[in-house]
Amino acid sequence: MKIVFGASGTLGQKISVALSAAGHEIVKIGRKSGDVQADFAGPDGLAEIYKALKPFDAVAIAAGAVAFGAFPEITREQWQFSFNNKLLAQITAVQQALPYINDGGSFTLVGGLMSEEPIPMGAAASTVNRALEGFVVAAAIELPRGIRINLISPSLIEESVPQFGDLAPGVIPVSAARVAQA
Amino acid sequence: MKIVFGASGTLGQKISVALSAAGHEIVKIGRKSGDVQADFAGPDGLAEIYKALKPFDAVAIAAGAVAFGAFPEITREQWQFSFNNKLLAQITAVQQALPYINDGGSFTLVGGLMSEEPIPMGAAASTVNRALEGFVVAAAIELPRGIRINLISPSLIEESVPQFGDLAPGVIPVSAARVAQA
Repeated sequence: MKIVFGASGTLGQKISVALSAAGHEIVKIGRKSGDVQADFAGPDGLAEIYKALKPFDAVAIAAGAVAFGAFPEITREQWQFSFNNKLLAQITAVQQALPYINDGGSFTLVGGLMSEEPIPMGAAASTVNRALEGFVVAAAIELPRGIRINLISPSLIEESVPQFGDLAPGVIPVSAARVAQA
Repeated sequence: MKIVFGASGTLGQKISVALSAAGHEIVKIGRKSGDVQADFAGPDGLAEIYKALKPFDAVAIAAGAVAFGAFPEITREQWQFSFNNKLLAQITAVQQALPYINDGGSFTLVGGLMSEEPIPMGAAASTVNRALEGFVVAAAIELPRGIRINLISPSLIEESVPQFGDLAPGVIPVSAARVAQA
């Protein structure tokens, strides 16, 4: 069984479709929809959910938001929101799953383009996305029982061009279905 | 005039010596020592200090701590301490200086080896140090008035071998004075 966070989102939907098409049983988790409702970034954590769902062999995350704004004006609260919502929430989702995930299981986290390609208004995204890369390479060497961890860094997603396209001029978008294959 | 945070630390002392030797007027800021006392990572921020010290043309930071521990056991509080103390504190130190720093001024932040070379017990350090790299490349494109920003990533510092050497076996240490030149 595979667990997908953010399954109702642009990317999460395609991940769910791709996993189902490959014959996997999936459990979709979303804030307001899916098979199980949970606040991904909330302080209560996900331990009870993992305990109820075990055994499972993969956790894929397509959830987490960051603040956008001109760098000098990003507030302390916006920085902390970004750290908690996209960075600490994904770290917590990994840590709390560890007691329950099968030997040889896998975690797939989501970063983003701005890790490598900074844009105006995107300082928090660049900071958080690159932090996730640092986390994944460090966590990888400490995971027990053959458990793996990877980070997907999608480019601009075609389905998101109406919302975010103006922020990333010149970037060739990819389909969410293509990202989900990764 | 140049402002040095963490001036009483291993690295900060050498930065102060190097800047003084080059004929610069420096103001040392420390939690308990230096020319001005301030809690670098506190919520009150540094705006009043910058206002009192202006004009200045450089801010060098050698302050900020992260939690160390086996990855699965790092607590939510330890993650948040690490984000606040080394990451958000340096970001805030840059943001709050912006209204007062001279045209063409410079910021120098401090990251660390674990950004590129993860070690057991070092997940928070890898996460925060790489986050700082993401922040610096993104902030650089939004800074006004010819202001520059750079990140120094010191290797293991000779003077810190007694404290941290066991965490980084095989790493060839460099002297704090050498790092201060960067």
